[in-house]
Amino acid sequence: MLTLGIDTATKVCTIALIDKEKILAAYEINMGMTHSEGLVPQMDQLFQRTGIAKKDLELIAVSRGPGSFTGLRIGLATAEAMAYGLQIPMIAVSTLEVLAYNLPVDNILLAPVLDAQKGNYYVALYEWHKGELQEVAPVTIMPGKELYGFLEQYNKETVLLGECDKLIIPENENISLAPLWNRLPRGSAVALLGEKLHKAGGDMDYFGTEPFYIRKSEAEELWDKKQQKK
Amino acid sequence: MLTLGIDTATKVCTIALIDKEKILAAYEINMGMTHSEGLVPQMDQLFQRTGIAKKDLELIAVSRGPGSFTGLRIGLATAEAMAYGLQIPMIAVSTLEVLAYNLPVDNILLAPVLDAQKGNYYVALYEWHKGELQEVAPVTIMPGKELYGFLEQYNKETVLLGECDKLIIPENENISLAPLWNRLPRGSAVALLGEKLHKAGGDMDYFGTEPFYIRKSEAEELWDKKQQKK
Repeated sequence: MLTLGIDTATKVCTIALIDKEKILAAYEINMGMTHSEGLVPQMDQLFQRTGIAKKDLELIAVSRGPGSFTGLRIGLATAEAMAYGLQIPMIAVSTLEVLAYNLPVDNILLAPVLDAQKGNYYVALYEWHKGELQEVAPVTIMPGKELYGFLEQYNKETVLLGECDKLIIPENENISLAPLWNRLPRGSAVALLGEKLHKAGGDMDYFGTEPFYIRKSEAEELWDKKQQKK
Repeated sequence: MLTLGIDTATKVCTIALIDKEKILAAYEINMGMTHSEGLVPQMDQLFQRTGIAKKDLELIAVSRGPGSFTGLRIGLATAEAMAYGLQIPMIAVSTLEVLAYNLPVDNILLAPVLDAQKGNYYVALYEWHKGELQEVAPVTIMPGKELYGFLEQYNKETVLLGECDKLIIPENENISLAPLWNRLPRGSAVALLGEKLHKAGGDMDYFGTEPFYIRKSEAEELWDKKQQKK
């Protein structure tokens, strides 16, 4: 099934076209451009170069977060509008699960993290088992300094992925960081996960799908505080 | 150092711009286009969208093989011409080593293979150790049916990468295939390896660099046979 995957949850703008687990094309840019500026022209290049017609798309998959507030909104809005326009199903997938696709190897605990601001991190734990990705711990939010203790209790070879540049992780036989060039999400993984979820009946409403933040935005927190003072 | 990586050794046409281990942009297409048709327009899109000027490139890295005869020739010719035109250094890297970048995780034996035609495969073995890729066995060529025995003697968790679609590998606790979507080379890995080799003084001659085939081409084999008959 011809699927377009979109990920704008982090700084990287990454899109891909896949068909039945085969990556037909993947374009990613990570140069500090805003996603509102970069996403659509990048998508246009992808369609132009591959010669694939948008009308032949069968599914649109988009990264739902956690992640950057504005990035997620742009990705979702674009996916929703395209799916609505083309009248094809849409799927939103977990950005943390997407990150686990960067290291598809058995028997290693994968700990994708995403910056939740103010020293906090979103984290979930996954493990591959014979080609299937299994969730070991659901997404949660915790201070970066507690992350190490959280991971250590599993006493297992663990690799951190995602936005872990600022994390200070003590030297440890068990815990390591993925290389800089293998940490960020890929549009191809969004499409792969989307295809799988679609088959399981997980299609979503074009206009009812919300980004997955957990934490409230700065603006919402400020609003809540103001309301309490009244 | 701003590096362009090019890989046309297999069916996928994959290019990337990196700078100091950071992937700035990566474009790949795997849709059966010939590389002579696809490579330059794809590169042009990459430069257009990133806004990076070709004159700012500092290094060009290209996948040297083993791999498809024509694909390698096109990649090398393009890299050589660009490096010569821009008067910047050029590096050619092993396609098998490039494939090992698809699974940067310690303590697993990586066995990238490339189709050498007539049931034969190019293979080399690698292992990651604390962020450094180490060669466990140098590149060799062997019949696909001998590959399993060759790998089994290491008695270690092993993952096959590359052009392994047609390989018949018996079920085994130790040996598995990388998922379909994580098997093919990436231009980013070519650039990463190139940057590393350049620092170690491995620059190459613009016009003296040959593809790495090991096996002779069909045409050469036929020629040799004809000569023997005389």
